[in-house]
Amino acid sequence: MKRLETTPKKDGYRMPGEFEHHNGCYMIWPERPDNWRLGAKPAQEVFTKVANTIGKYEPMTVIVSKAQFDNARHHLDDNVRVVEMANDDSWVRDCGATFVVKDEGEVRGVDWTFNAWGGLVDGLYFPWDSDDKIARKMCELERVDSYRTDDFILEGGSIHVDGEGTCMVTAECLLSEGRNSHMSKEEIEDKLKEYLNVEKVLWIPRGIYNDETNGHVDNMCNFVKPGEVLLAWTDDENDPQYERSKEAYDYLESETDAKGRKLVIHKMYTPAPILITKEESEGVDAVDGTLPREEGDRLAASYVNFYTGNGFIALPVFNDPNDEKAIKLLEEVFPGRKIEPIYAREILLGGGNIHCITQQLPSGKK
Amino acid sequence: MKRLETTPKKDGYRMPGEFEHHNGCYMIWPERPDNWRLGAKPAQEVFTKVANTIGKYEPMTVIVSKAQFDNARHHLDDNVRVVEMANDDSWVRDCGATFVVKDEGEVRGVDWTFNAWGGLVDGLYFPWDSDDKIARKMCELERVDSYRTDDFILEGGSIHVDGEGTCMVTAECLLSEGRNSHMSKEEIEDKLKEYLNVEKVLWIPRGIYNDETNGHVDNMCNFVKPGEVLLAWTDDENDPQYERSKEAYDYLESETDAKGRKLVIHKMYTPAPILITKEESEGVDAVDGTLPREEGDRLAASYVNFYTGNGFIALPVFNDPNDEKAIKLLEEVFPGRKIEPIYAREILLGGGNIHCITQQLPSGKK
Repeated sequence: MKRLETTPKKDGYRMPGEFEHHNGCYMIWPERPDNWRLGAKPAQEVFTKVANTIGKYEPMTVIVSKAQFDNARHHLDDNVRVVEMANDDSWVRDCGATFVVKDEGEVRGVDWTFNAWGGLVDGLYFPWDSDDKIARKMCELERVDSYRTDDFILEGGSIHVDGEGTCMVTAECLLSEGRNSHMSKEEIEDKLKEYLNVEKVLWIPRGIYNDETNGHVDNMCNFVKPGEVLLAWTDDENDPQYERSKEAYDYLESETDAKGRKLVIHKMYTPAPILITKEESEGVDAVDGTLPREEGDRLAASYVNFYTGNGFIALPVFNDPNDEKAIKLLEEVFPGRKIEPIYAREILLGGGNIHCITQQLPSGKK
Repeated sequence: MKRLETTPKKDGYRMPGEFEHHNGCYMIWPERPDNWRLGAKPAQEVFTKVANTIGKYEPMTVIVSKAQFDNARHHLDDNVRVVEMANDDSWVRDCGATFVVKDEGEVRGVDWTFNAWGGLVDGLYFPWDSDDKIARKMCELERVDSYRTDDFILEGGSIHVDGEGTCMVTAECLLSEGRNSHMSKEEIEDKLKEYLNVEKVLWIPRGIYNDETNGHVDNMCNFVKPGEVLLAWTDDENDPQYERSKEAYDYLESETDAKGRKLVIHKMYTPAPILITKEESEGVDAVDGTLPREEGDRLAASYVNFYTGNGFIALPVFNDPNDEKAIKLLEEVFPGRKIEPIYAREILLGGGNIHCITQQLPSGKK
């Protein structure tokens, strides 16, 4: 498949909202024992649940290393497609292709340069060369041409779009030193405008407290539809999350989207702080150069990190009283979709959640 | 995708003739330096020509290891899909899926056990575990269910079918000690009947002289259409090929196919003997356990090892006077197809030819 020298904007392609129609979804099977405890077996169980759940609604593909192929094939439902692909870890939202569409249903991929959330500055593991090739290989699988941003580093989890010209990011992430510190904020914004085909970028200051991705927006705020967002929230002013949510709220309230609309903001209450236990910490291999998982560290738990698919929402839950609140809120704001709650502590322990481990393949149909 | 416990025959699936309509074609990128001279670079050039040629007529997919992904992607045409898959060598005809169809266009795969043409008895390399997984992975890619023959070893190059109930094999290969020596000829025939859905098996005694596959039929004899075959031939009674071709001719002349038809047999003259040169031999890594490529060894050259695709034939040629004869014969017997001759010495040096390195994905349309 072709590498294109133009941009999606120039060619009339746009990134659709995640809530638009999909032709499928991708995940990557987790395995690295220096990130996932107990040889990734507990994580694999939850990833299996997520993949099998999504597979009920959309054609599901799970990417897996040669070593884990048979094991993944054994666990996943028959209708889930399993394909071999070398990888460094399982965050397809971040290393995978961002698919863009034309209204008539044509699909292409954006293959952002990936450097493991900060490269040699504050990246989470080394090397990341296999991850950086995932996007192109996904485009090959789907027989779609791709745009490569050789001079621009981005992860799919650091952007959200409404499909109508608006993109949301966090300044904490997009202006971090480990990504594009050679570029100005305006230059970064121009890249987003060209490759996502948007006219307006909303710069939320920061993401979730202690989020190792430098505050990805997909853990903090998500579009329900154009003009309407869900924002991670706590009323506890002693929680360091409070000031982050408050400043995001104030910022979003003061802004308009690409169409000049004021945003409807729904507060989505976070679970009570979740800390890594001693047992959990001890199950992870200690490897120099990989972010350690230490007892007592607070995890970046948020209900906002859900996946929006055809007719459903795959929602991480935590055995927390706010689980029910999150489910009810989603039932209200997504009236046409079934809410599928999945107990996701094991994904969270690896550094993200359901949105981070999924990547939609849009169809171009609204 | 599912593993099925039944058989194609029981489920109403059959292997179509290669001349029936395809939805695509698979190849595997060559790379092992103990089989392909000069780090496989000359072979890669010819494989590229084959893939790009087929890609003009059918959706082409080239399987490639992680290590060679970028290089293969660089050489192959944009419309050729490149997918990562671990492999031991590049003979997708033999290790890949044999696809079977139902008349209404449904497709499934047969995943024969593969043991590198003879396992520990007289196999060509060790290990072969990656190759043995290729068929299932192809079925995953295509989202089709598969049948696995755990107790039966077969390569796709050791069978040819007419799509109307007849299969051709060589006794030399199918009764070889390194494959199914625990089974009787009748038991082997029953397997072919069940998994290809045929009623009659034609047992040609032997294949091409000095063919390291124990005489695969696909180098010796091929169907043009039901009731009509091409047979590798020489008039030189001093050539050890002569008695092999003669006994095959006599056998086929004495037989009828599944529909009771006498076969029309076209003689396809082989090129003059082709021997490995000193330079060619020296370019191959010497590795214990892999078949050596020695100076002066005669190669199993045959024009019969062509690929029949949608509207074309990809034909190996050898800069031999008989090249023209082969082209003319194919033009006569395949009036609707363009003949695409490809100089194929570099494939032959690796132990096979164009048919051995390709595998069709039939559509189920006649």
